[in-house]
Amino acid sequence: MSNQKLKVGIVGGTGYTGAELLRLLATHLSVEIVAVTSRGEAGLPVADMFPSLRGYVDVSFTDPETVDLTICDVVFFATPHGVAMGQAPALLAANTKVIDLAADFRLQDTAVFEEWYNMPHSCPDLLEEAVYGIPELNRADIKAANVVGNPGCYPTTVLLGLAPLLEQGLIDFSAPIIADAKSGVSGAGRKALITTLYSEASDNMKAYGLSGHRHHPEIDAQLKQLAESDLQFIFVPHLVPMIRGMLSTLYVKLTANAKNVDLQALYEQHYAKEYFVDVLSKGQLPETRSVRGSNHLRIALQQQASDYLTIVVVQDNLVKGAAGQAVQNMNVMFGFEEHTGLDVVPLMP
Amino acid sequence: MSNQKLKVGIVGGTGYTGAELLRLLATHLSVEIVAVTSRGEAGLPVADMFPSLRGYVDVSFTDPETVDLTICDVVFFATPHGVAMGQAPALLAANTKVIDLAADFRLQDTAVFEEWYNMPHSCPDLLEEAVYGIPELNRADIKAANVVGNPGCYPTTVLLGLAPLLEQGLIDFSAPIIADAKSGVSGAGRKALITTLYSEASDNMKAYGLSGHRHHPEIDAQLKQLAESDLQFIFVPHLVPMIRGMLSTLYVKLTANAKNVDLQALYEQHYAKEYFVDVLSKGQLPETRSVRGSNHLRIALQQQASDYLTIVVVQDNLVKGAAGQAVQNMNVMFGFEEHTGLDVVPLMP
Amino acid sequence: MSNQKLKVGIVGGTGYTGAELLRLLATHLSVEIVAVTSRGEAGLPVADMFPSLRGYVDVSFTDPETVDLTICDVVFFATPHGVAMGQAPALLAANTKVIDLAADFRLQDTAVFEEWYNMPHSCPDLLEEAVYGIPELNRADIKAANVVGNPGCYPTTVLLGLAPLLEQGLIDFSAPIIADAKSGVSGAGRKALITTLYSEASDNMKAYGLSGHRHHPEIDAQLKQLAESDLQFIFVPHLVPMIRGMLSTLYVKLTANAKNVDLQALYEQHYAKEYFVDVLSKGQLPETRSVRGSNHLRIALQQQASDYLTIVVVQDNLVKGAAGQAVQNMNVMFGFEEHTGLDVVPLMP
Amino acid sequence: MSNQKLKVGIVGGTGYTGAELLRLLATHLSVEIVAVTSRGEAGLPVADMFPSLRGYVDVSFTDPETVDLTICDVVFFATPHGVAMGQAPALLAANTKVIDLAADFRLQDTAVFEEWYNMPHSCPDLLEEAVYGIPELNRADIKAANVVGNPGCYPTTVLLGLAPLLEQGLIDFSAPIIADAKSGVSGAGRKALITTLYSEASDNMKAYGLSGHRHHPEIDAQLKQLAESDLQFIFVPHLVPMIRGMLSTLYVKLTANAKNVDLQALYEQHYAKEYFVDVLSKGQLPETRSVRGSNHLRIALQQQASDYLTIVVVQDNLVKGAAGQAVQNMNVMFGFEEHTGLDVVPLMP
Repeated sequence: MSNQKLKVGIVGGTGYTGAELLRLLATHLSVEIVAVTSRGEAGLPVADMFPSLRGYVDVSFTDPETVDLTICDVVFFATPHGVAMGQAPALLAANTKVIDLAADFRLQDTAVFEEWYNMPHSCPDLLEEAVYGIPELNRADIKAANVVGNPGCYPTTVLLGLAPLLEQGLIDFSAPIIADAKSGVSGAGRKALITTLYSEASDNMKAYGLSGHRHHPEIDAQLKQLAESDLQFIFVPHLVPMIRGMLSTLYVKLTANAKNVDLQALYEQHYAKEYFVDVLSKGQLPETRSVRGSNHLRIALQQQASDYLTIVVVQDNLVKGAAGQAVQNMNVMFGFEEHTGLDVVPLMP
Repeated sequence: MSNQKLKVGIVGGTGYTGAELLRLLATHLSVEIVAVTSRGEAGLPVADMFPSLRGYVDVSFTDPETVDLTICDVVFFATPHGVAMGQAPALLAANTKVIDLAADFRLQDTAVFEEWYNMPHSCPDLLEEAVYGIPELNRADIKAANVVGNPGCYPTTVLLGLAPLLEQGLIDFSAPIIADAKSGVSGAGRKALITTLYSEASDNMKAYGLSGHRHHPEIDAQLKQLAESDLQFIFVPHLVPMIRGMLSTLYVKLTANAKNVDLQALYEQHYAKEYFVDVLSKGQLPETRSVRGSNHLRIALQQQASDYLTIVVVQDNLVKGAAGQAVQNMNVMFGFEEHTGLDVVPLMP
Repeated sequence: MSNQKLKVGIVGGTGYTGAELLRLLATHLSVEIVAVTSRGEAGLPVADMFPSLRGYVDVSFTDPETVDLTICDVVFFATPHGVAMGQAPALLAANTKVIDLAADFRLQDTAVFEEWYNMPHSCPDLLEEAVYGIPELNRADIKAANVVGNPGCYPTTVLLGLAPLLEQGLIDFSAPIIADAKSGVSGAGRKALITTLYSEASDNMKAYGLSGHRHHPEIDAQLKQLAESDLQFIFVPHLVPMIRGMLSTLYVKLTANAKNVDLQALYEQHYAKEYFVDVLSKGQLPETRSVRGSNHLRIALQQQASDYLTIVVVQDNLVKGAAGQAVQNMNVMFGFEEHTGLDVVPLMP
Repeated sequence: MSNQKLKVGIVGGTGYTGAELLRLLATHLSVEIVAVTSRGEAGLPVADMFPSLRGYVDVSFTDPETVDLTICDVVFFATPHGVAMGQAPALLAANTKVIDLAADFRLQDTAVFEEWYNMPHSCPDLLEEAVYGIPELNRADIKAANVVGNPGCYPTTVLLGLAPLLEQGLIDFSAPIIADAKSGVSGAGRKALITTLYSEASDNMKAYGLSGHRHHPEIDAQLKQLAESDLQFIFVPHLVPMIRGMLSTLYVKLTANAKNVDLQALYEQHYAKEYFVDVLSKGQLPETRSVRGSNHLRIALQQQASDYLTIVVVQDNLVKGAAGQAVQNMNVMFGFEEHTGLDVVPLMP
């Protein structure tokens, strides 16, 4: 990169992932936010909607119809599913890279996409070149990518929690992989819904997604790819009364071979060079607040039955689970240090 | 009353005050819930919307268009402002009493009503006979009333917090009465709004109602009536991250005469026979959770400056501040023991 | 029972289970609270410590050294582990029945007790006649019991969640039974600890009990007894930022035989006559708040993989998980209607 | 300053203000943390106690008896009241500057100190040269100071909220100044207390400090100094269920002269050059979360009665109310840009 700052656009800046991108990019010294679009709020200073950004973000929302995003080096889509795939081809044609925080470029199988998202996929060809954006799994591909499908929040925890075992072939697929996952309420987005009102979600907990959660096929596909095997995956998401934070408890059956492996050491070595993945010492268990506001993800192992392993993974669902990982992907794509703009110390308490 | 149960109807059963009426009436041995209306949910079992009522409430929502509420002895309106005044005349004509939990019958001055609620008042004549429903202030009138305007949540705390002083003429009106009031989020109702989402309202606090809160004119009118005097009233409501609970801190200037009065004793004697109003001992301050789920209201006095008194009042905004007081009014109107159905011990912790 | 009220004593009335016993017994028309002991608070009116009980509980704490509890018909121990077994023999000798809310009478195997609770068991003979107090599992034995070991909060959810399957032999024990359990913070008790401070536990979630939770051996023993088989049990408890509420997500492998069984119907029939156990309709999932403050426990089934079943169970950890179940046991032991004093409608929102 | 980093010591690193200093200093490029003391935790890596600091803080706690803090350029005391005054003389003698986050150097009048803190003041002479550390009020003095008494959290909101009026003589002292203040629970510190347990403080609110809060005399003294007048001050602090955040609602009587002043413009101009003080536009009211995790303080004005003004002030009690302001003071004392290390964008949601 030259001295010039990277020109960044954000489509859909009024939701939580949009606001979170703004929070992180506001202190990223190598980028310049040139446009934040919102159909409904065009003209409103961004900091009037999010007073937390007063003094840090000076732009106003612009109408997506009138702004030319091809002047950007990269455009983030913090929009509902289906928006990015409509605009990506034109942007790519103008050499603008695309990072989609929705699901348009997460699932390689368009039939699966169309089944779970109830819409046709408008650019299956782009899907083929799109890269699934977890740098710890696909760094080289992301570096070369023009389109990144930023993963769902739950998938990030499950995939990074299991990657060391999968890579070593230590999971016995005769039993299903079980992910009992818990998310803070911000994962439901900044949408006016009764179910996520304070008075409904506070001092309360529930399992949800009885008929299937959209992250199920996403995790399933990625697990099978990492495993190079078929497997069964059981996924039960829960809603927990906290704003941010995600904790996934993973239960896997180990192969006979795993008895000869020091699993703690395996995890520590696997992630030794990863800035954002932290394997806790034996005897520690992670809390979600230990990553509040930051892009870190922490993992701990626990073994109760000799041939089963429990893996506990925590992240901030809006950061490593969404906007932070998107910025990390951008850093990889444009050759910045991977943690640029992401050195936010977790907020404790 | 004969042995027959009182026939009760609830118009608007899908909000928090409606649900709270159902919770309380479900164990009131002398009433029978004959209809709970909802335009949008007709046919749905009430307990499907509110699973907390499974086993306690067996009725389904009925369409307000098709149900004949004149078979009821009393109808509660847990509706938006403006609904009760449309239906009250017909009900009264059929000898069905009306208790409105919205604002239609709270303000005697229709001009003030129309200014604050942006709608004409359709039955000003009924307004004249309507009684403002705080039994501790207007018990005799409520007993004889056919229409009760159940007060707002904030007004109940301010009026009961000041009544002993006002009755004795101990407030010096050369300074304004100040009410710094704090409410749990359920006071905003069960409406899909971004501002009351968990992720917006949790771990957060704000003052609101900058341009004036609708309870301001209500309190103002009642204060002047109790004081038999003009006075200035400053009212700043705040939103606090708790589901239920309201705490009002009241600041008044005392008359010179008040120096000769034992104010603690005055309050204790004033409320000695009131089942639901509890004056704490000197040296105690109330917590909102001490009334969680119950119809009790607790008061404490604190004096920092010689001629100013601070009064702290707590209640559950959905009970004494809404549905509980409505049931208390019903008990008064129909000659039941005033605490029938209201002996719910506060939930602590 | 004659018309005379049952004389009840509570040893250890300053914790949450003690306070909860008081809340429930305060409106139980057939009992009289004759003593609430506390070494540290003797002389203090109970309602001064718990203002929520003002107007409902008039007794003061008494010194355990000076009070004669043998005048009681039944004594509840809401004390740390190890207290009840010290006092039970004398009480039983005086025909006073004992319900222990701690662990003294939960584990039949004294070696296991001593390993997990780090203390010798002082009356192994009493242990033999003690009954494990889940009425839905052991009603007849409880009816005849003099000593009841009231179960831990987690065990109640796991055992009632699995009983229908275990009784029918539908679980395949070649895979472990997994209980991923989540508890509100009140489960940790009313003890001054840094880890359960508001600023530590709020907006935060964690797994805990890495080295083993004391409810593990308790559940393990009961499961094996119900199953009449050996089995593997994996138990991961989590702490969730809510005051009350427990949600356990249970994962079991089904036998081949289970394919021919309508599991939903099995659960509904199994619990059809149980007042406090509620099997939700197919397609519903329970929330903890749907039982807040009440003795109800709700169960739902979900099946993602053909040979695995997920069971979701919710209860209020302080009620069905502790004090409410203790009162239910008392009702069974003394021949009251089982829900006497327990008809508290859950508090929603 | 030369290129060399500032050597910083922290005495008492296990509380919330200590942890917050560590969070902020961890990314302050011009300082090096050379020692964090703790009597009880000596030897433990700081990041083992606060896993949020893993990867950011590498030091271990050291025993205060064995560490030589005179090698530091500046030492922060995040200790209970009374510790700093014991160690300050020796540090100052070695040219080490002192910033005390407790109360030892806040009150100029030792008699008042001794009355409210129940201990003799051991170095009244140092007290005389100590500067009260609000840069927006005392910047020049802080620049020259060797000892700074970092203010209490409540005083910062009240003093900055009233400074423009006081400086212009626009408050009529015939009525008391009233501060109705609300604090998140972290203000109570990281101490094992029953009253601040999650199960006690959550979903609950109360006024506290009936017999007087220690910030009362601190605010009172500063107000009188700013006003150059006697005055009456009423202060009612409240505890609110949020981790961080403080909102103070201030009520003052205006002088006749104030009618001719554009108060909104006065505030905006007064703070126009202050990096951390933000006067909201007319028609906006601040939320505590708009400053969560940051050193910003936001102010809004509201006028309901012609001669009274309401001022609403928010800050993060641990940042501008404690550790952030301490770092800001350090920056002033050592000639750094005032916002160095403090450009943390508030965490929203």
